Amino acid sequence: MKIGIDIGGMSVKYGLVNDNNEIITHHVIKTNTEIPALEYVKEMCEGVYTLLKEANINLSEITAIGIGAPGLIDSKNGEIVYSANFGWRNVALVKIFQEEFNLPVALANDADVAALGEVCDGAAKGKDNVILLTLGTGVGGGVILDKKILSGPLKGGCEIGHMTLQMDGNVCACGQKGCFETYASATALMRMGREAARDNKDSMLAKKAEGNMEAVDGKLIFDCAQEGDKTALLVVDNYLHGLSVGIASLVNIFRPEMIILGGGVSAQKEKLTNEVQKRVENLSFGSGEGEAPTIVTSKLGNNAGIIGAANLV
Amino acid sequence: MKIGIDIGGMSVKYGLVNDNNEIITHHVIKTNTEIPALEYVKEMCEGVYTLLKEANINLSEITAIGIGAPGLIDSKNGEIVYSANFGWRNVALVKIFQEEFNLPVALANDADVAALGEVCDGAAKGKDNVILLTLGTGVGGGVILDKKILSGPLKGGCEIGHMTLQMDGNVCACGQKGCFETYASATALMRMGREAARDNKDSMLAKKAEGNMEAVDGKLIFDCAQEGDKTALLVVDNYLHGLSVGIASLVNIFRPEMIILGGGVSAQKEKLTNEVQKRVENLSFGSGEGEAPTIVTSKLGNNAGIIGAANLV
Repeated sequence: MKIGIDIGGMSVKYGLVNDNNEIITHHVIKTNTEIPALEYVKEMCEGVYTLLKEANINLSEITAIGIGAPGLIDSKNGEIVYSANFGWRNVALVKIFQEEFNLPVALANDADVAALGEVCDGAAKGKDNVILLTLGTGVGGGVILDKKILSGPLKGGCEIGHMTLQMDGNVCACGQKGCFETYASATALMRMGREAARDNKDSMLAKKAEGNMEAVDGKLIFDCAQEGDKTALLVVDNYLHGLSVGIASLVNIFRPEMIILGGGVSAQKEKLTNEVQKRVENLSFGSGEGEAPTIVTSKLGNNAGIIGAANLV
Repeated sequence: MKIGIDIGGMSVKYGLVNDNNEIITHHVIKTNTEIPALEYVKEMCEGVYTLLKEANINLSEITAIGIGAPGLIDSKNGEIVYSANFGWRNVALVKIFQEEFNLPVALANDADVAALGEVCDGAAKGKDNVILLTLGTGVGGGVILDKKILSGPLKGGCEIGHMTLQMDGNVCACGQKGCFETYASATALMRMGREAARDNKDSMLAKKAEGNMEAVDGKLIFDCAQEGDKTALLVVDNYLHGLSVGIASLVNIFRPEMIILGGGVSAQKEKLTNEVQKRVENLSFGSGEGEAPTIVTSKLGNNAGIIGAANLV
């Protein structure tokens, strides 16, 4: 039995995971960035004890703890090097957990961990070479090569959302320009939808939002496009183009067996994947001669992080 | 003792390579695409016998043959799937060589093989995670991860020159738009230089070319920039920007230890690498927090293909 921990911006999720990658018991605590990091890590350790209590299981039955965390992670040294969201720097998470529980502990980037989860027991079960893209606030990405997380030898990790799609293009939260995520995230889709609704007050998209731009989210945009609204169709077309060009770029580099789409936008399921599949096949290098990966949506959803983390050790 | 064979557009180069990765004997034949592929492969086999004769060595002293070839390669099945330059399709090179010489034979993409050569005994000797970019007619690329060539499980290989740098940008020879190589190849540099010389007839660049646009090559552009010609400086600046943004994108994905620049433009040595190094450090994700690779020019030059090929098996 292992424990997988998924540290997110809002909550830290714990799961007791058995050998069949089933989550036996869940536990959740709120993320607290208002107290010093080291104090909060102690609270995180307490969460493990609560999980065990809830499951009525002894620590001695646990063989390992795996943790996924956002930001710049140094997996080799088990440290969160820097987390912009939390304002944390050089938090030696693995050392602290090891000392507390006297167990093997591993740490990796949250997007990488989710990708590993999908390979271990999700949409890509049985596959060796897979890329997960989470289309959410940004574009998180995890690349699995030969069943292992690609993270590179230098500090910084694999940040697929920050590969360049448009040199000197949209300004990104990371400070650079033209990053993939500024075209392919849920945030990008909403930005494009809101601009289009503002500029086209007679469109179905604008009318359904009733002047409230907050109401223009990914679902409304896709729904209006489905009903034939020209404004929404154009937004969806632009969004799918950016997403597909970026995926084709990844295909030209990795030729993976499968690309898994997660995050908010992936709720569109086949409305998203059917169209992206066609476009990626046309946009990839040597389209007729090369082979394109299968593009699917994630299967594990929010549990991918816990299951991937449990499989880190 | 192994044999490395480097199949190029103009010539096929053979090298007898010893255990210290020294090329003991060279042999070269002309590439001939006017006869059927299978006939030409027989000529290629003959070249091996000539090499052995020249070296005064018996076939029994050879332990393996490695081959690098351009185009879409299926390394697992030992086939050239498609070579646009040669017009070849599904040439089972490895099988033919194995039957002829009764030795272990391996085949890989030429850019991948050159990257392996630089890792085995070139600029990246002793390193495990390295990217080679050859800045020539196009941008060839080879990614070495844990000392092995990245080629992906599906047909198509790793084509770094065809990752997207500018969505909907310059038309590429591959049929897609905005590929890295349309901004970072020697061809791209010359195109930019010639356009600038045409538009700025009073520039040093235009004057030195004396109206002959063919004379505007990478060396002239860099030389004029070095002497302070504003037109040439702007061309070099634009070129270095595209190259550096593309490399930063690769850093964000792979975080390799080293990036090696080869091909015609790499003759500029430190004039190229010093500037690209600075820019890549600023352009990479989390620039201050992450680590940037060392950027150098290739050491083996034209021998990288032979030495890499000899190390394939």
